[in-house]
Amino acid sequence: MKLSQILLTSLFSFATFSTHAAWEALPAQAPAPANNPQSEAKIELGKILYFDPRLSQNGVISCNSCHNVMSGGDDNRPHSIGVKDQRGGRGAPTVWNAAFQSVQFWDGRAPSLEEQAKGPVTNPIEMGMADWDTVVKTLKAIPGYAPLFAKAFDNDTITADNAVNAIAAYERTLITPNSPFDKYVKGDKKAMTAQQIKGMEAFEKTGCTACHSGVNFSGPKMPMGTGFFMKFPTFADNDYAKKYNFAEDLGKYTVTQKEGDKNMWRIPTLRNIALTAPYFHNGTVATLEEAVKVMAKVQLNKDLSDEQVKDITAFLNALTGEFPKQTMPQLPPTPNMTVIAP
Amino acid sequence: MKLSQILLTSLFSFATFSTHAAWEALPAQAPAPANNPQSEAKIELGKILYFDPRLSQNGVISCNSCHNVMSGGDDNRPHSIGVKDQRGGRGAPTVWNAAFQSVQFWDGRAPSLEEQAKGPVTNPIEMGMADWDTVVKTLKAIPGYAPLFAKAFDNDTITADNAVNAIAAYERTLITPNSPFDKYVKGDKKAMTAQQIKGMEAFEKTGCTACHSGVNFSGPKMPMGTGFFMKFPTFADNDYAKKYNFAEDLGKYTVTQKEGDKNMWRIPTLRNIALTAPYFHNGTVATLEEAVKVMAKVQLNKDLSDEQVKDITAFLNALTGEFPKQTMPQLPPTPNMTVIAP
Repeated sequence: MKLSQILLTSLFSFATFSTHAAWEALPAQAPAPANNPQSEAKIELGKILYFDPRLSQNGVISCNSCHNVMSGGDDNRPHSIGVKDQRGGRGAPTVWNAAFQSVQFWDGRAPSLEEQAKGPVTNPIEMGMADWDTVVKTLKAIPGYAPLFAKAFDNDTITADNAVNAIAAYERTLITPNSPFDKYVKGDKKAMTAQQIKGMEAFEKTGCTACHSGVNFSGPKMPMGTGFFMKFPTFADNDYAKKYNFAEDLGKYTVTQKEGDKNMWRIPTLRNIALTAPYFHNGTVATLEEAVKVMAKVQLNKDLSDEQVKDITAFLNALTGEFPKQTMPQLPPTPNMTVIAP
Repeated sequence: MKLSQILLTSLFSFATFSTHAAWEALPAQAPAPANNPQSEAKIELGKILYFDPRLSQNGVISCNSCHNVMSGGDDNRPHSIGVKDQRGGRGAPTVWNAAFQSVQFWDGRAPSLEEQAKGPVTNPIEMGMADWDTVVKTLKAIPGYAPLFAKAFDNDTITADNAVNAIAAYERTLITPNSPFDKYVKGDKKAMTAQQIKGMEAFEKTGCTACHSGVNFSGPKMPMGTGFFMKFPTFADNDYAKKYNFAEDLGKYTVTQKEGDKNMWRIPTLRNIALTAPYFHNGTVATLEEAVKVMAKVQLNKDLSDEQVKDITAFLNALTGEFPKQTMPQLPPTPNMTVIAP
């Protein structure tokens, strides 16, 4: 065997090995912290709270308003709409499979779903509640919540911690298994189309898996609370980065004020990415094909061919999973009165 | 037998007769118009449309936003919040059992659920779509809707009429049977408390059944499209009518401009009334007890005792029915893009 043949064989083996080793199917269950184990009662309470618009100042915005579990887990808007028609600067990330992210929010500022759930409720441009004391007071004014909290927690009092623990427990059930990709990596070679398989190869060869790896395509497995961050845009001196104004929002830096955190972002999942347009933290990119082109350029400084873009987009569509059937919660009433301020 | 005895017996018989004849349990099914018969496929499509916020200009308001079927079928607000944080002058009526109302809207201006469904979608201060052509265009841009319309209608095209027919078909399933009252009138004499039974008698003796009769407590059975209207306030020269500013909104007159329609209103249902505070067309009355006092005064010129108010309120709480378990719809996606305007 000549040296060139050995090299070729070796390279081919490596390529084959890496292709097969990189892909992981979505687990059926998400990890839960030791101090907030899953339970049926907690999940049910969490679902009710997730859909209860009385957790907002004007009584019409629930968690589900922006993270709609009847669709892709977001709102398909560039920026969500909060109380008084206010808009934030970033889009709502999907809640589906968020339990597999090791940190929450675009900038990774929350180390858990529990901590994340505390944020929007009292954010003045989101759900707009004055503070969590007000939220707890509201929940206590709704007679049906006391028995639900009692059933879900040994400590039966209605507290902010119990409320967010329940919401997080519900969110940990929001998993979308059996995407064509998952079926494919589990051995059903007909689950993906020829173009999707080609796109899967292009996705890896382009270098997308440098960040979008692991069960959730959001990076390698990290301890919960430890984020996997990347600079975005890495290559800022191109038309895309300028047109879409990516560098303006400084990402993690806005939380830490550390120079090294400028434009650093948590790697978001690519699961169900076909359903969550428009794209990127600032929602400026309208289509997934454009997002694929943009990512190759601003992260890897590569110009993809139209064919590569179409193939990778086809592959990303293979990451759309099955949405579990859910029953609607019935919100506990406040007979003869309302707790919503006019 | 003396004349006085005869009279007393006669009066007593009449009272007994009327008490028993007046009360009707809620039927299991609501009437549907001949040109829009119920079908599983139509109901399922209607449910999806009912929950789809893409029927609004900003992509976040669905029918369910103001007529929340996870609670009492309204939003517990004095006035609902539409696009751009706009408020109308009237509260959202409950969608539960609306199929038993012979006309829709507070002022009865829609002769059917189908006609009603056309209104809010293109109302500039509600869901704010420019017109139904825009709605249809949006629905056509969502690939999953075409097969759903095809399954629901022989005429498989996506049209405004088909859309509202489907929504109305879904709404006709929104029935809350087995309230304590319904069980009671069907023979379970323990279904209502002693106070509720006392309140039921007070409700009738006070004269409430003059309007709030029939299966839905919204008046006698009328042909669909024919409204049963009453002047509100009938007695306007009292503190309540002034304090709550009832006469300002001219009701049916705002639609017809006919002198005789001034302050005329459709009789709203009292089913699940305990769950739909605040009360009246303008949402000015915070509690059900106050609403009972107000109604006796402004409609019947009666001052109820505290005991009567409490008893009637207890009875009205017996009109809260059972809410059918529903599965959440999954909204058809727009892969790789969004149809919501930024």
